[in-house]
Amino acid sequence: SSSATTIRATLFPGDGIGPEIAESVKQVFREADVPIEWEEHYVGDQIDPRTQSFLTWESLESVRRNGVGLKGPMATPIGKGHRSLNLTLRKELNLYANVRPCYSLPGYKTRYDDVNLITIRENTEGEYSGLEHQVVRGVVESLKIITRQASLRVAEYAFHYAKTHGRERVSAIHKANIMQKTDGLFLKCCREVAEKYPEIKYEEVVIDNCCMMLVKNPALFDVLVMPNLYGDIISDLCAGLIGGLGLTPSCNIGEGGIALAEAVHGSAPDIAGKNLANPTALLLSSVTMLRHLELNDKATRIQDAILNTIAEGKYRTADLGGSSSTSDFTKAICDHL
Amino acid sequence: SSSATTIRATLFPGDGIGPEIAESVKQVFREADVPIEWEEHYVGDQIDPRTQSFLTWESLESVRRNGVGLKGPMATPIGKGHRSLNLTLRKELNLYANVRPCYSLPGYKTRYDDVNLITIRENTEGEYSGLEHQVVRGVVESLKIITRQASLRVAEYAFHYAKTHGRERVSAIHKANIMQKTDGLFLKCCREVAEKYPEIKYEEVVIDNCCMMLVKNPALFDVLVMPNLYGDIISDLCAGLIGGLGLTPSCNIGEGGIALAEAVHGSAPDIAGKNLANPTALLLSSVTMLRHLELNDKATRIQDAILNTIAEGKYRTADLGGSSSTSDFTKAICDHL
Ligand SMILES: CC(C)[C@H](C(=O)O)[C@@H](O)C(=O)O
Ligand SMILES: CC(C)[C@H](C(=O)O)[C@@H](O)C(=O)O
Repeated sequence: SSSATTIRATLFPGDGIGPEIAESVKQVFREADVPIEWEEHYVGDQIDPRTQSFLTWESLESVRRNGVGLKGPMATPIGKGHRSLNLTLRKELNLYANVRPCYSLPGYKTRYDDVNLITIRENTEGEYSGLEHQVVRGVVESLKIITRQASLRVAEYAFHYAKTHGRERVSAIHKANIMQKTDGLFLKCCREVAEKYPEIKYEEVVIDNCCMMLVKNPALFDVLVMPNLYGDIISDLCAGLIGGLGLTPSCNIGEGGIALAEAVHGSAPDIAGKNLANPTALLLSSVTMLRHLELNDKATRIQDAILNTIAEGKYRTADLGGSSSTSDFTKAICDHL
Repeated sequence: SSSATTIRATLFPGDGIGPEIAESVKQVFREADVPIEWEEHYVGDQIDPRTQSFLTWESLESVRRNGVGLKGPMATPIGKGHRSLNLTLRKELNLYANVRPCYSLPGYKTRYDDVNLITIRENTEGEYSGLEHQVVRGVVESLKIITRQASLRVAEYAFHYAKTHGRERVSAIHKANIMQKTDGLFLKCCREVAEKYPEIKYEEVVIDNCCMMLVKNPALFDVLVMPNLYGDIISDLCAGLIGGLGLTPSCNIGEGGIALAEAVHGSAPDIAGKNLANPTALLLSSVTMLRHLELNDKATRIQDAILNTIAEGKYRTADLGGSSSTSDFTKAICDHL
């Protein structure tokens, strides 16, 4: 059924509520006539009996070949020595930037109604090096690694994103007053890239101050770029401003232009299979995937339908204070298309 | 003029607005008949001509001898190779815990009116080790150090604080899913101490999730204890919830029971000497010093006078949207005593 105009994209529904919310995306894409054919692979906390592995070579190859994918939540395999599958995917696919658009959803009230920012997180190094050891009994150390290559790459992505998305300013978040060499190198790379984008304003904000400013007045920020751990922290903080991880899209960018969009919330095993899950984060993530594919009309149409459904307030899942099922909410979105 | 019942305390007014806000504390203490005699020392970004140093031995000795002190903001001396004076004081005086009570101020409106928590930050190690180096060109690393000794010490302080201040729960903040050895050791120490305090509830919260929960619903938290960098970030985030660093008290606890209370905001050179500064953070910090000295009646009386003055709203400094001078605001507090 694939035709010349059909784009193949990988789908990892994931664990827990993953399959239900993935179904929601499939339905909405069908309804909107998105020319995408899904190549579905299971990656999650169950061992593939053929390969005895949690993550098959075919699954990775599928994303590499298609260049785009969408993933649901994956539980981390239980037992010692298993790395989180999220981290494994980042590493294997060299997903160097995690991009999270974060904006207040019209009609969904939180303490903030003026959030409209993008966090761009370096996704491969920093505190996530995995290098740790015990020096002597009772004294342990972890290594934070910052490289010029990865810093330039994510900075370049951030400025390019700002330029191509009509954004005005990039803020580099750091703690270079303490980590002068590591965060200092990160800043140096951001400055170098900033010089190539004179039309984009550039500023540097210390992470503690950034968090204070974000909770006082998030409208002060536009695009934020930062090393791995700060990105982990700040992207979740920002998600909190607009209602939580159930509402925030996320997309990982890899070398060679790979894009793996993902819902960053958990697999919610307690409500799995009960038709109760909120598919918003995965749906909005699929929109970022469409934008990456430059299917902007489809992206905008779907995004509007999602936002309008939430704004209308008639169909909302339990986490948003409503009582709709996943399928009724999805149907409402389809009706808005 | 020192008598048997007079307590000597060190005062570092600091730079910029420091002297003005320190004057405010002195005035309020006089008005409230606090039996404290100040031993004032200059520590700041000016070189002491006698010693050619920014921080004299006498200044440090004064805190060590008195066991208690209060410090205003200090600018970092300009020029390469100067360590922040804040960090130097922490190191020299072994100020291992930074304690910040953070509560919504009645009558001063922010997006949150239900904040009432305490952040307790390990203040000596972690990412602040100062150990960094270049591995090869373009690859740098910083060491994060976690020790059993420092982790137990700050955990012990946190649980003891919770117990003696009528608090119910201690949350240890970490990223042990990534830094299993360092943050893992920190958690292990917290768990050990938690067992000695069965009456205090204990939980562990991953830092990214913690930040999201804090901005969604800060009332979920009571006492938070964490390694250095997370404490730096979260204590500022929490300050943001209630209005900023100009309103939040802070106290550093050192070995042997030393307490150095401090305003953690900057020295605001732009408004220095203009009678415009808000002395609230230093005043509330001086209250934490009084509580440390178990002068609880005085502490409560002064704290009430500060909070009532702010709540009344007639006298507020410019940063709080008012037009009062430092001295008028201080006088209003004295009138409330
Ligand atoms: C689950 C965890 C390892 C992961 C991270 O720290 O990166 C998560 O918090 C995220 O942001 O994707
Ligand atoms: C000025 C800076 C070095 C300091 C820190 O990072 O500890 C400050 O942010 C603080 O919290 O006291």
